[in-house]
Amino acid sequence: MTTEFQFTDYDPYDFANRRHIGPSPAEMTDMLKVIGYHSLDELIDATVPGSIRQQVPLTWGAAMTEREALDKLRETANKNKVLTSLIGQGYYGTITPPVIQRNILENPAWYTAYTPYQPEISQGRLEALLNYQTMVTDLTGLDVANASLLDEATAAAEAMALCQRSAKTKATGFFVDKDCHPQTIAVIQTRAEPLGWTVTVGDPFTDLDPTEVFGAIFQYPGTHGHVRDFSGLIARLHQTGALAAVAADILALLLLKSPGEMGADIAIGSTQRFGVPMGYGGPHAAYMAVKDAIKRSMPGRLVGVSVDARGNRAYRLSLQTREQHIRREKATSNICTAQVLLAVMASMYAVFHGPQGLKAIAQQVHRKTVLLAKGLEKLGYTIEPETFFDTITVEVGHMQGLVMRAAVAEGVNLRKVGETKVGIALDERTLPATLEAVWRAFGGKFKVSEFEADYRLPKDLLRTSDYLTHPIFHMNRAESEMTRYIRRLSDRDLALDRAMIPLGSCTMKLNATAEMLPITWPEFSDIHPFVPADQALGYKEMIDDLSEKLCAVTGYDAISMQPNSGAQGEYAGLLTIRAYHLARGDAHRTVCLIPTSAHGTNPASAQMVGMTVVPVKSKDNGDVDLDDFRAKAEEHAANLSCCMITYPSTHGVFEETVREICEITHQHGGQVYLDGANMNAMVGVARPGDIGSDVSHLNLHKTFCIPHGGGGPGMGPIGVKAHLAPYLPGHVVTDGRPGAVSAGPYGSPSILPISWSYCLMMGGEGLIQATKVAILNANYIAARLKGAYDVLYTSASGRVAHECIIDTRPLQTSAGVTVDDVAKRLIDCGFHAPTMSWPVAGTLMIEPTESETKAEIDRFCDAMLAIREEARDIEEGRMDKVNNPLKNAPHTVEDLVGEWTRPYSREQACYPPGAFRVDKYWSSVNRVDNVYGDRNLVCTCPPMESYAEAAE
Amino acid sequence: MTTEFQFTDYDPYDFANRRHIGPSPAEMTDMLKVIGYHSLDELIDATVPGSIRQQVPLTWGAAMTEREALDKLRETANKNKVLTSLIGQGYYGTITPPVIQRNILENPAWYTAYTPYQPEISQGRLEALLNYQTMVTDLTGLDVANASLLDEATAAAEAMALCQRSAKTKATGFFVDKDCHPQTIAVIQTRAEPLGWTVTVGDPFTDLDPTEVFGAIFQYPGTHGHVRDFSGLIARLHQTGALAAVAADILALLLLKSPGEMGADIAIGSTQRFGVPMGYGGPHAAYMAVKDAIKRSMPGRLVGVSVDARGNRAYRLSLQTREQHIRREKATSNICTAQVLLAVMASMYAVFHGPQGLKAIAQQVHRKTVLLAKGLEKLGYTIEPETFFDTITVEVGHMQGLVMRAAVAEGVNLRKVGETKVGIALDERTLPATLEAVWRAFGGKFKVSEFEADYRLPKDLLRTSDYLTHPIFHMNRAESEMTRYIRRLSDRDLALDRAMIPLGSCTMKLNATAEMLPITWPEFSDIHPFVPADQALGYKEMIDDLSEKLCAVTGYDAISMQPNSGAQGEYAGLLTIRAYHLARGDAHRTVCLIPTSAHGTNPASAQMVGMTVVPVKSKDNGDVDLDDFRAKAEEHAANLSCCMITYPSTHGVFEETVREICEITHQHGGQVYLDGANMNAMVGVARPGDIGSDVSHLNLHKTFCIPHGGGGPGMGPIGVKAHLAPYLPGHVVTDGRPGAVSAGPYGSPSILPISWSYCLMMGGEGLIQATKVAILNANYIAARLKGAYDVLYTSASGRVAHECIIDTRPLQTSAGVTVDDVAKRLIDCGFHAPTMSWPVAGTLMIEPTESETKAEIDRFCDAMLAIREEARDIEEGRMDKVNNPLKNAPHTVEDLVGEWTRPYSREQACYPPGAFRVDKYWSSVNRVDNVYGDRNLVCTCPPMESYAEAAE
Repeated sequence: MTTEFQFTDYDPYDFANRRHIGPSPAEMTDMLKVIGYHSLDELIDATVPGSIRQQVPLTWGAAMTEREALDKLRETANKNKVLTSLIGQGYYGTITPPVIQRNILENPAWYTAYTPYQPEISQGRLEALLNYQTMVTDLTGLDVANASLLDEATAAAEAMALCQRSAKTKATGFFVDKDCHPQTIAVIQTRAEPLGWTVTVGDPFTDLDPTEVFGAIFQYPGTHGHVRDFSGLIARLHQTGALAAVAADILALLLLKSPGEMGADIAIGSTQRFGVPMGYGGPHAAYMAVKDAIKRSMPGRLVGVSVDARGNRAYRLSLQTREQHIRREKATSNICTAQVLLAVMASMYAVFHGPQGLKAIAQQVHRKTVLLAKGLEKLGYTIEPETFFDTITVEVGHMQGLVMRAAVAEGVNLRKVGETKVGIALDERTLPATLEAVWRAFGGKFKVSEFEADYRLPKDLLRTSDYLTHPIFHMNRAESEMTRYIRRLSDRDLALDRAMIPLGSCTMKLNATAEMLPITWPEFSDIHPFVPADQALGYKEMIDDLSEKLCAVTGYDAISMQPNSGAQGEYAGLLTIRAYHLARGDAHRTVCLIPTSAHGTNPASAQMVGMTVVPVKSKDNGDVDLDDFRAKAEEHAANLSCCMITYPSTHGVFEETVREICEITHQHGGQVYLDGANMNAMVGVARPGDIGSDVSHLNLHKTFCIPHGGGGPGMGPIGVKAHLAPYLPGHVVTDGRPGAVSAGPYGSPSILPISWSYCLMMGGEGLIQATKVAILNANYIAARLKGAYDVLYTSASGRVAHECIIDTRPLQTSAGVTVDDVAKRLIDCGFHAPTMSWPVAGTLMIEPTESETKAEIDRFCDAMLAIREEARDIEEGRMDKVNNPLKNAPHTVEDLVGEWTRPYSREQACYPPGAFRVDKYWSSVNRVDNVYGDRNLVCTCPPMESYAEAAE
Repeated sequence: MTTEFQFTDYDPYDFANRRHIGPSPAEMTDMLKVIGYHSLDELIDATVPGSIRQQVPLTWGAAMTEREALDKLRETANKNKVLTSLIGQGYYGTITPPVIQRNILENPAWYTAYTPYQPEISQGRLEALLNYQTMVTDLTGLDVANASLLDEATAAAEAMALCQRSAKTKATGFFVDKDCHPQTIAVIQTRAEPLGWTVTVGDPFTDLDPTEVFGAIFQYPGTHGHVRDFSGLIARLHQTGALAAVAADILALLLLKSPGEMGADIAIGSTQRFGVPMGYGGPHAAYMAVKDAIKRSMPGRLVGVSVDARGNRAYRLSLQTREQHIRREKATSNICTAQVLLAVMASMYAVFHGPQGLKAIAQQVHRKTVLLAKGLEKLGYTIEPETFFDTITVEVGHMQGLVMRAAVAEGVNLRKVGETKVGIALDERTLPATLEAVWRAFGGKFKVSEFEADYRLPKDLLRTSDYLTHPIFHMNRAESEMTRYIRRLSDRDLALDRAMIPLGSCTMKLNATAEMLPITWPEFSDIHPFVPADQALGYKEMIDDLSEKLCAVTGYDAISMQPNSGAQGEYAGLLTIRAYHLARGDAHRTVCLIPTSAHGTNPASAQMVGMTVVPVKSKDNGDVDLDDFRAKAEEHAANLSCCMITYPSTHGVFEETVREICEITHQHGGQVYLDGANMNAMVGVARPGDIGSDVSHLNLHKTFCIPHGGGGPGMGPIGVKAHLAPYLPGHVVTDGRPGAVSAGPYGSPSILPISWSYCLMMGGEGLIQATKVAILNANYIAARLKGAYDVLYTSASGRVAHECIIDTRPLQTSAGVTVDDVAKRLIDCGFHAPTMSWPVAGTLMIEPTESETKAEIDRFCDAMLAIREEARDIEEGRMDKVNNPLKNAPHTVEDLVGEWTRPYSREQACYPPGAFRVDKYWSSVNRVDNVYGDRNLVCTCPPMESYAEAAE
């Protein structure tokens, strides 16, 4: 019976080695041969300096199979209790249309896409985001909207900063309406304090002195339901040169006068209730819209309309020069990851319902609230305010606890307001039975049919202006149409479900389906962030266990899940360092050393916490210049707050000197911030906490499998050493401590099941293996491209870490071929380009991750080598310098259909090595003109007539 | 406050009118104008004869919103109890790889596709089905496999029929191994009886007399676990000219000698346990594989390899001449709908795991069974058989009930075997904890770790031959690769998620996402069909309520959910009529009148129940020739069993004479079978039961929104008048009555939530409106195409029902343009062709359904009109008769890339009216050569070398 025993070592359910890690054992052997090593461990030993190698094994029990992990997740989910939450405070029940849930949120074509930096392969989601911007500008009555911020509270903080830099006053105060949501006030306070801005929280109608502020923010409707007209206040602010921001409920704007019509300069808010589940606090897309005059100062990504090389309409990200990666320490915001997937969902919700449907929804929510109020009034309760949209507050005196508990017993969560009041906010999901349950909690036994619904909106603030008039919001509402529209858009885009996305530092690895399944379970998605703790025990268990695992991975002692992006993590980490110094009486320690090679968010984040950025030189080989580092540290020793380093470096190398850098920093009283963006090269192999770092953020959307969603959501939890733990961000609702950086206490917890199940299914051993294979894959690419391209930086042993930077500048000199040309030609081959011109202009940074198979990597290398040969044809005069496949890339079907006058064949144009023949990906536009788009800025859907023109 | 009151009548959650029904009210007004009516009701009055109009309102409470329906489904699902079922008997726990669940079963690109009759737009699923066939031929050791049958039991009955027509003996007996699953035996008996074949059930080693049978079927392993060698018996059968079939467990074949190696002529079985959930009995794909010698007699669909017009490899359905729609009353099987979606899933499961993984799974299942047996033996129980694969039987004497109940208390279902035994079958999902729970039910408190796993497979039957050696089963197992492979295949196909599929009589309507969500909930999908009734109360509630609604819709008194396809429904309906006559002593009543225009399954089904088909003429206008009908009825009055009619007719017309046909039939002692294929034109407008029909099947996959899945699953429940109710199919497990037509008592119940939620969300009123709009849409198309094409059949009022037949034969005469040319040119326009040449050769039958919007219908009509103009260009000499866009269609990117020597432009070739410009669908192959494929029959994956050749 030997036949069966031949393969007992084969485990078909081994997630790590058979599903997540790309190369098979046989392929790995072949790849090692190409690089010149006998074993994976030999390669790792040569790559990762012995001095930093992890000593503690990474182990937390056996890896689970997909089924075991899903069972575990199900068991954990069942520990959360799904009640009807009428808590409001910025989070509301909503109905995700199934067609959107299944075809966007659960569809890898959408959720595995990267940020649309390469517009030619991103026209689908760019159109969806343009719809989003149009929706926001229309509803807010403002001129320009961005394509999403992280949450309402951080959007409010961004609004404050925007006021500060755009106001025509030297005042240093900022006024915050006390009727803003508490978490919004907290995040504003966190943001203002290090920058020296004085925040006054009060009643704007009595406490606001326009001469003392550069801006103010008002909530509309207020957190307790009041609907107030801010026009007069805004006019007064403008007289002093200050600006006004309004935090507005997107659904209320269907019925109420817009912030723009009140004269506001800025509107911000959440689009959560447009079809995005509450998810215990996130992720959701926040919006920001501004007046035309300040659009170039607005933070965040902005989609605009441009033209392609054939003059056809094409979308792209506009005004990227505003962004942190260009402005660095001059940046005024560090926002990088947005909430694209959620913004797409919200925009599709608007497209699906249209203005008529949205207005009907808003109206129904309001009418239900009036019914609720009538019942409570009949019971003798006093309701405030007199006019409202969807939120009312009830005076209950000493009965507060009783009513709240009775409501829970009825399956309903209400909001505790002060010590004697109860808040109730209704939504799209509120059923008649819910109203009756609430009445019962207040002691009433009514039927909804006993009352007549009518309106209690303030007459003067009724909306009379049009919105969503663009034809895109007037599509036929049939689900067939919607399904096809979503499919058409996704087909224009290239995501991980079709090809590798070899982005340096962005770690586009497998987002396994088993990891994605739980996030749409109601037990995770339908939980309000401020439910009583006993309703979120499943979340608690998951967050605790994941935190513990992340501590084991990083060597830190404590984790905060609050930062909901990598940049937020940096910001939170620096705030923690700052708070530590302050607590020790070292307020003067504000100098932050940052190598010039750092990611642009690093200096931007440092700027946001009031630190002075001191750049440190890089050596020619890309390493931090240790001498310069030492000199700068000594020079600023008295005031040194910290250094920010990235490891492995942004040049894709394990530097040997990292321990020394940490020591120098500590020696001079500073703390070490180690940027966790490259953690995928370290998990199980080296731990930041062991090397000497004090704090790091982890990009869960890079290393821990949360998909990029086309440009968000992300998660950027921070890990710290024990001495920093007391200074981690607090939250006004959960622990009452200051320092909140996000609206929700745990950032975007509804996507944490992804990272958690990844850890469970990989096990400690699997994670270590993944790191090793990530390093193998990168070194394999470097080896295969050798000769054709120079690898810019390697370690002393000649190895790269998990990514490699190849130099395309020689092609510019020899053949006039730019890095852009190479990137666009890769589209013809069916690939998303590697990271372009970062961290070094004129280079490509390639990160294959462990998830890509040898076959896919070879396909990519074949494409890169063929491109090199095409450049050689130009160099050697066989191909024209201007009219060649590289300059004309990407080629589209339009090119094939028209007359062909090019000095190369259609065949060569369309089927370069790497491209699939039958299943070729076709870009929907030719090369997009960036300059045209910035010069002729259009950030809303163009009128239909212009489509007709374009077609001509 | 007038602004809010403007639109209180707008309900954004109205599923029927805003989601399911395509045209908006404004669009309907425009469309009616084109047809020439003022209102929808006026059109319906002119279309549907008053004499048949429904008198009873269709009402069952208010229509639910999507959310309400999903809540209701959730509540119902929760009434099912998900225990671990170790019952076996043909149904086993399995793990659907999440990547397959999400990207195939939950992906509209796969589930909304139609049967791949148009190969050019079906290359993706044809490849998946070819993989399936290769998997089956390899594992069974036979030469040719088809692309799925309905379930194991019907496959066994088909195997019997295949033996009968292929055997070289005049014997009329068929031997059935008593170790076949009970439901298999029952379905074989049902099938044999009307055909006069004698079925003997017994022990093949003692009871089989080869001289008395045309064939025999053995179960391998047997239903109680015995693994026996049938080689000797098969050799003896062959000596007498009889054939042998083996019903084999697909997973066991990984470890055991194949049926082919034993000499079997036929192998059948279920592929359920290859990743397809049990679903309370279905749907799953059954397989059939045969020796080369009898391949042309094999029933069911067969995918083959051919070439396209450029000589490139292309897949297609082969040997369609074998099918019922060609052979009609000469057909020997009525199989039509297959189980494509499930076959695709099973094939992907094999691709994903590969031979090594599958073998490991089989091995693990076996080893767990050995562990189980050891524990029971230690407790002193006697286990049979001595050697086994995954199923054992335990003698427990009078303790049977006790053990079974104790197991249920432990969360495990076991199988009752006789009065003193308990059967246990393990599977891929069985956990160590499950074994321990079973032991506890038998009174033992062991840990799995106390025993050592080994092997008890029969040494002589160990498999030594290779399987799944084709490279497709040796893809890298990384999920990235799998995701991309699935995506690439689906991108080659055109399904409802991209464009309308205007198939006459196939009713390709919206399959709403909300309807699809529940089918992958474990409470529906993880239930064994033979669980105790109290574990399936949710199913019962759903089936009862859906049956009640279908009775209300049809005017019948009872429903059987057992038939799992439309053709099975016909067969079951005719069996019911036959049983009725038999019970009345009218055994001689065997004549079945069928109009010549009937669907080919009608005469095929009649043949299967031993009826004599008497064709009835059609008139020139397509109606049944009433005079001929009357004459034939009178002529055969003494022996008249029934008539089979389709209403509205297969010509797409509401005939005025339908009541008279029913009356004539009844007058002569016959029963009326009204084919429900066109029910989408009747729901709420006319009821078969009211018109005079006695029995109908309903295609739930047409009228009631079950998606076509690329060629199945379907559901064909039958409704009957009260007098026929006692003769509906029984089931050996549930009610012990004879007459089973399917393996499962309720056919394919796990897809019933689709039809049920459709009924709930539409409400009675919504269903009526849908019917009316389906009629509107069809008449609109007829009106728009008028002048360009003749509509072949209309009612006296000049109207069509829900479909229309347009005549393309004049183009053949005038321009040499065939109906095929028109169909293929439609692919260039981005459409699936209407039904071709049925029911009339040279015509196209178009059914838009209510779900298509005016915009999509107009796009289709624009395409059709443009095609007419292209034909005119040929007629009038402006275009070559042979080298023209119609003959060369479909055009592919390959055409564009190569040299262009055609007398029309690339532009005209690729962008005819109707085609999207940016989002154009490209066929992956040029026109497929059907003749070549049938002449050079290849029905397994071609060797890789041949791909290389093709590429050259």
